[in-house]
This record gives sequence, structure tokens and C-alpha cells, in this order.
Amino acid sequence: MRVLLVGASGTVGRAVADGLAPHHELIRASRQSGDLRVDLTDMASVQRMYDEAGPLDAVITTAGHVHFGALADTTPAQFNEGLQDKLMGQVNVVLAGMSRLRDGGSFTLTSGITAAEPIRFGTNATTVNAAIEGFVRAAATELPRGLRINVVSATVLTEALESYGPYFPGFEAVSGERVAQVYRRSVEGVGTGRVYTLWQ
Amino acid sequence: MRVLLVGASGTVGRAVADGLAPHHELIRASRQSGDLRVDLTDMASVQRMYDEAGPLDAVITTAGHVHFGALADTTPAQFNEGLQDKLMGQVNVVLAGMSRLRDGGSFTLTSGITAAEPIRFGTNATTVNAAIEGFVRAAATELPRGLRINVVSATVLTEALESYGPYFPGFEAVSGERVAQVYRRSVEGVGTGRVYTLWQ
Repeated sequence: MRVLLVGASGTVGRAVADGLAPHHELIRASRQSGDLRVDLTDMASVQRMYDEAGPLDAVITTAGHVHFGALADTTPAQFNEGLQDKLMGQVNVVLAGMSRLRDGGSFTLTSGITAAEPIRFGTNATTVNAAIEGFVRAAATELPRGLRINVVSATVLTEALESYGPYFPGFEAVSGERVAQVYRRSVEGVGTGRVYTLWQ
Repeated sequence: MRVLLVGASGTVGRAVADGLAPHHELIRASRQSGDLRVDLTDMASVQRMYDEAGPLDAVITTAGHVHFGALADTTPAQFNEGLQDKLMGQVNVVLAGMSRLRDGGSFTLTSGITAAEPIRFGTNATTVNAAIEGFVRAAATELPRGLRINVVSATVLTEALESYGPYFPGFEAVSGERVAQVYRRSVEGVGTGRVYTLWQ
């Protein structure tokens, strides 16, 4: 399949690229590197990305930032940044792509364990990730032409422990290789409206 | 207790006011009526509301709009409106209020059945309501001085069936009187981080 991977330069994105490259024709998009450059918060940039990518069977998004910090010190603008970047960024990819993907194609979005398991400084992350899972649950009922949509919720990646480990005390990590397999299940499988979790 | 009810003029707000008025000193806030006027999307307006309200034991928000429409016809700007109004509006009430409520006080927010049960034209509603529930789950871990936070998720109200009934085919309605009791349980109870549901 022709698969567009948005956020290919991040920790999850690199793992997904490694796992899917042997099986699919991958087009890598990212803010500052890859085959295509894109700013997901700018709908015109998202539309250009699709114009340049050509026909697609699947789109995977592993991009997006949230705000980390104590709630008492968080401003509305900081809180909104996470909504605009990780949530609206992925929503834009679906809004622009639902008329473009080939029949039976799929979207696979990315949330995270914090949707269900709050962590210190992570209220924005929990909010944004819960919103993404809600979006996928509902969008699955609206997609035309047999299109599917799922979301992957992983715990902290082994490869990211050095930078993010302190936020996840007592959480098991998961290897990027295992994470990539779940994205592959979403792309090649039959599920839709699903949250595929990589944690207990 | 001194209870600030934001969104007092809506269908849920009126029911909550009727149910709580016999038991508490209610201050009613709304965009265009009530004791205090407020625009929840404007943090300066939210701060003024708190300045004018004086000491509070509880804040209830029943305010906020989302976008209804087919996903294929939804623009990023329309999708973002729901995020800014119903989600950021309620988040702003908490961000501004968490240093102001009396020790042991509580916030009670409002989501809705669509968080879990998608309805036609309701992808924005599902996204926003899921986000609010995520916010409450995480914010409960961050609130100081024994403050609590919960969210009420009701199905369509009997009193709103005339306008919203067509969106909820086969859904049982619930009376405003029963809904108000759940808000009262949140205000006077001990729960925090809870989603109180009014539907099966």
C-alpha cells in the first residue's frame, strides 16, 4: 500500500517507519525533514501535503505536542497550544484526507496512555489524548467509501525513556518495534473506531 | 454553601438552579442574563466574574456550545469553535477558580452522553465531551486544599426533547429534576475525578 506517515521524525514515527517500510511504500512527512514538509496546524499546508503525496491507501499521524506543567501555572494560551497542535493537527489530517484516500483506506492517529492514566504535569496531555480518542470513536461513524479510522495509545517507549522516563514512574515501557506492529494492525486490519492500547 | 452556577439560563442550568436553590445560596452567571454576565472564552471576563461573585464553596458550569454538522462539511474553524467554547470555557473556569474557591470546595463541569455514544453530526460533540472528561480525570490529581472536581454526563433532557430529540433516536430522555440531583451529589458529596453518568 502507499502509506503517508506524518511525524516520521519523532520517536514513535521512526519506530513506525522501521516497522512498516518492509511491507509498504512509505511517504514520510514532517515539520522539518522527510519527503514532504508540513505544518499540521495550517490547513493550507495539510492540503499541499496531500497534493504532493499523490494517491494514498493509508495515513498515519504520529505528530503533535502537548503542554507539560502544573495546572496552577498553566495559562489558557498554553492549554490551547496542545489542543491546536496534537488534536487539531490530527483532525486537520482527517478533514482534508477523507475525500482523498482511496476507497477502503485508513487513518491511524496517535493518543497515549495519559488519556486514561493521568501523570504529574499532564492535565493537558490527558485532555488532548482523550479528545483524540473521542474524535476517532465518532469519526468512524461518518467516514465514506469504506474508510476506517483508529488510534494507537502507547505507554512510554523504551527509546524515549531517557527524556520522558521521569514523567512515568512505575510505568512499564514498550519497545518501538511492538508499537509499530499495532500501527500495522490498524493499517492492514479491518477494525475501525478502535483505540489500540499498548499498556495494561 | 455559596454556589456559582455558570450557564444558568440553559436547559440544564435552569434545572440545576431549581434543584439546588432550596439548599444553597446560588449566584447565577450567564452570557446575557442572571446575577453576573460572563464570556467564558475570555479569561479577563472569567476573572471579573469571580471578583464579583465573592467567596465560593462550589462552581457549577452548564455552559458551552459545540458544532453540529456532517464531518465532511466541517471546517477546522468550525471544529475549533466547539473546542474554544465548551472545552476551553470550562477549563478557564477551573484555571481561574482553583486559587479562589474556599478550602474543600468543588467544581462540577458538564459533558454529555455523546462522549461515549456518537450521534449523527456529533463528531465535534464527542471530541469536546471526551476532552472535558479527560480534563476532569487529570485535574482532580492537581487541585490543592482539598478541592474536588467532577463532571456530569447526561443523556438528552426531557425538557430539551423538542429541539434536540431528533438527534437522539432511541435514546431515553432524563428529567431535569433527576439531572439536578446528580449535580447536587457532586457539590455536597466526597467524589473527585468522577464522571457521573445519567444514562445506560
